[in-house]
Amino acid sequence: MVQATALPRNETGIETAVGILKQRFGDRCQTGLSIREQHGHTTTYIQNQIPDAVVFPAGTEEVSEIVKICAEHKVPVIPFGTGTSLEGHVNAPAGGISVDFTQMNQILAVHAGDLDCVIQPGVTREQLNTHLRDQGLFFPIDPGANASLGGMVSTRASGTNAVRYGTMKDNVVALEVVMPDGEVIRTATRAKKSSAGYDLTRLMVGSEGTLGLITEITLRLQGIPEAISSARCSFPSVDAACQAVMMTIQYGVPVARIELLDELSVKAANIYSKLDLPETPLLLLEFHGSEAGVQEQAETFGSIAEEFGGNGFQATTSTEERNKLWQARHDMYWACHGLRPGAKGLSTDVCVPISRLAECVGAATAKAAELGMIAPIVGHVGDGNFHCLPLIDMESAEEIAKAEEFVGWLNDLAISVEGTCTGEHGIGQGKKPYLYKELGPAMRYMAAIKAAFDPDNIMNPGKIV
Amino acid sequence: MVQATALPRNETGIETAVGILKQRFGDRCQTGLSIREQHGHTTTYIQNQIPDAVVFPAGTEEVSEIVKICAEHKVPVIPFGTGTSLEGHVNAPAGGISVDFTQMNQILAVHAGDLDCVIQPGVTREQLNTHLRDQGLFFPIDPGANASLGGMVSTRASGTNAVRYGTMKDNVVALEVVMPDGEVIRTATRAKKSSAGYDLTRLMVGSEGTLGLITEITLRLQGIPEAISSARCSFPSVDAACQAVMMTIQYGVPVARIELLDELSVKAANIYSKLDLPETPLLLLEFHGSEAGVQEQAETFGSIAEEFGGNGFQATTSTEERNKLWQARHDMYWACHGLRPGAKGLSTDVCVPISRLAECVGAATAKAAELGMIAPIVGHVGDGNFHCLPLIDMESAEEIAKAEEFVGWLNDLAISVEGTCTGEHGIGQGKKPYLYKELGPAMRYMAAIKAAFDPDNIMNPGKIV
Repeated sequence: MVQATALPRNETGIETAVGILKQRFGDRCQTGLSIREQHGHTTTYIQNQIPDAVVFPAGTEEVSEIVKICAEHKVPVIPFGTGTSLEGHVNAPAGGISVDFTQMNQILAVHAGDLDCVIQPGVTREQLNTHLRDQGLFFPIDPGANASLGGMVSTRASGTNAVRYGTMKDNVVALEVVMPDGEVIRTATRAKKSSAGYDLTRLMVGSEGTLGLITEITLRLQGIPEAISSARCSFPSVDAACQAVMMTIQYGVPVARIELLDELSVKAANIYSKLDLPETPLLLLEFHGSEAGVQEQAETFGSIAEEFGGNGFQATTSTEERNKLWQARHDMYWACHGLRPGAKGLSTDVCVPISRLAECVGAATAKAAELGMIAPIVGHVGDGNFHCLPLIDMESAEEIAKAEEFVGWLNDLAISVEGTCTGEHGIGQGKKPYLYKELGPAMRYMAAIKAAFDPDNIMNPGKIV
Repeated sequence: MVQATALPRNETGIETAVGILKQRFGDRCQTGLSIREQHGHTTTYIQNQIPDAVVFPAGTEEVSEIVKICAEHKVPVIPFGTGTSLEGHVNAPAGGISVDFTQMNQILAVHAGDLDCVIQPGVTREQLNTHLRDQGLFFPIDPGANASLGGMVSTRASGTNAVRYGTMKDNVVALEVVMPDGEVIRTATRAKKSSAGYDLTRLMVGSEGTLGLITEITLRLQGIPEAISSARCSFPSVDAACQAVMMTIQYGVPVARIELLDELSVKAANIYSKLDLPETPLLLLEFHGSEAGVQEQAETFGSIAEEFGGNGFQATTSTEERNKLWQARHDMYWACHGLRPGAKGLSTDVCVPISRLAECVGAATAKAAELGMIAPIVGHVGDGNFHCLPLIDMESAEEIAKAEEFVGWLNDLAISVEGTCTGEHGIGQGKKPYLYKELGPAMRYMAAIKAAFDPDNIMNPGKIV
């Protein structure tokens, strides 16, 4: 595991606050080691830093109460959704209270005519889409994991559909937030657009619980498309695949998904998902629209792909075939682990201008080879966002050091080509040094916002700033 | 004219700063009354509050110099693009320096492969689109006026294309900003998406010059669609038109524009643009896509319109007919003035959930009649955003009072149905009281950001907070 910096603990404050919370919330305030470990950072490559207690509020008022207690005693508050974040977001480096939103999982309203809904933050992506299906609606953002929407707002999540539907920043209409002193605010109304003052909604989206706790979310929805088709095409090189993607997007084809798998990833998918794809770079696509529309989109892409040496182009509207393909994509994390059984994948993401994507993927492949690492790459290529998954032996200090060197090198590379150190995973603990490299002087203003909102630094301390 | 509150002037500071700026910038620092009047708020309904000098910087370094001089002497700085804002944004209620970005009008880079460009803030919308045309690209946001992009960023502008392409918040990738102490920051990189910390880009978009001066803008671009068609359809009522719009959007038809004109507006357009439209509520539409795609979109809309009693549905791919129709829409402001020659239109905007739009438009029509005012209504109906234009005699205190009563009532109405007091015009001076009504406790956090960034309140004082 990669070590995480511990921060000074306010022992007296923590003890007092935990006592008050236990009295107030009874069984809904848990202090057993096992549950606390589950609420520290267990699923990723960063060391687990466990909180002192886990509280399960049932509503906004209770969240406000918890925050007021913690504010009074200057005790850290760390929001917890489903624990699928990747950069140490839910760790408690200074101890404190983990606020678990599992019990705040109500879908409060669906306004079909307005294409929006109002939900509590513990609602998961799959729960929401199951609920919406009968009304012919869906929420498009899909980061892979069945994350909570509160967590997805907090990390500005995106995923495979972002090329068409945007990221969480584009799909949150308004938020209710419990601020660091326990006050409850609304950041905006339910209007689809607004020019009413500073965009507090967008400020909260991606703030990773460091400015307040989200207690209610108004989301923009989409109508389920009349037709969905998918396609795949192999390319002689990553560069050829990227050229085809650029042309497709510039041509205005409204692709819903366009994903790149490098050779290593295709190999992993073939083994894990029992496929027989040619082991060269692959694009997987999905088209949304009318029957005629999706056919036309697929044909247009097919012609473009051919221009760039694509081969084995196949499009299908069969749900079964489509599901098989996308299941393989969603299983990539596990499939890649099959390339080196017993190793652990260190999932890292960067995002670069798409014109620089091919060279960055090529350089990353070469760097991994130079370091003697197996590091498959998959990418949300329509956005220039890609993930590397170095497979390392977590017991080997040498391999961990190499993986850290690789991540540092990759982030520097992304920043050097006008890209960002994270397209969708967020900063958490893992990306803090790169954020400073990326934005330099602007960090003073992030710190100023943090200090103005949360002068005692109780909201998820040790993350972002 | 509606009166605007004057703020205390720092006479000594202003005199010193103007002296330094004159010496430093020579002819590019103007203090003549006429040019200063042109840089106060002349085009709208709010009283003109003129700055003490107008400076024309040639680049970021000079903007930084100007701000440093003003910061040292605690003198207000007011950014100026083309002066087409509508709520007193460029007024100088405490005097100070107007920074005119006319000379910072370079298109610095167009990255066709990445579908983005980097420009200076003085570039206008039409200038940019003329420049992009040869590369098959365009920038979709169209607020009507040929505004500067800096101004459009600052007010979070949108307009007729927003239903498909979003607002400025969705189309700005990154900004370079001169902060209140003169420091230059970049808010983000050129990556299409990012989870890297607080979204300073979105915080600056819509901040109306109150947090810093924008000196460089990275914008997202679109490929010019293969085919564009337009359509119009009359409806028996505003309600029927709104029902058709909701169904169209829910059905997933990717309309590029869908505009509502009420009876009074249709009447005005008939007179001004020599049309013979039936004088009932009208929808104007535009579709972008492939040849087959736009035809299918128009047909789908046609069927939906029929269901809701639409009549006279006409679709066309003729550029000439399309231009005629949209010219009429763009000319609405002037056309409406024809309904009461000599009067001045007080343009105001609100945005409500689309399911509440019909009742709000109906109530606004009734309220205007009750007050004895002529107030045509047009709407970006796909977003629930509509504009009222009460035509008033600016010499009549009674009429001005009635118009103010109407605007206050309209904003209260919008807020009461979970809408916002401005969908796209911004807050400026005119909407400040309603912003507080709309967001209440959240305003404390807007004020906290303002105080943290600009403790001496020199950046466009008297606007938003």
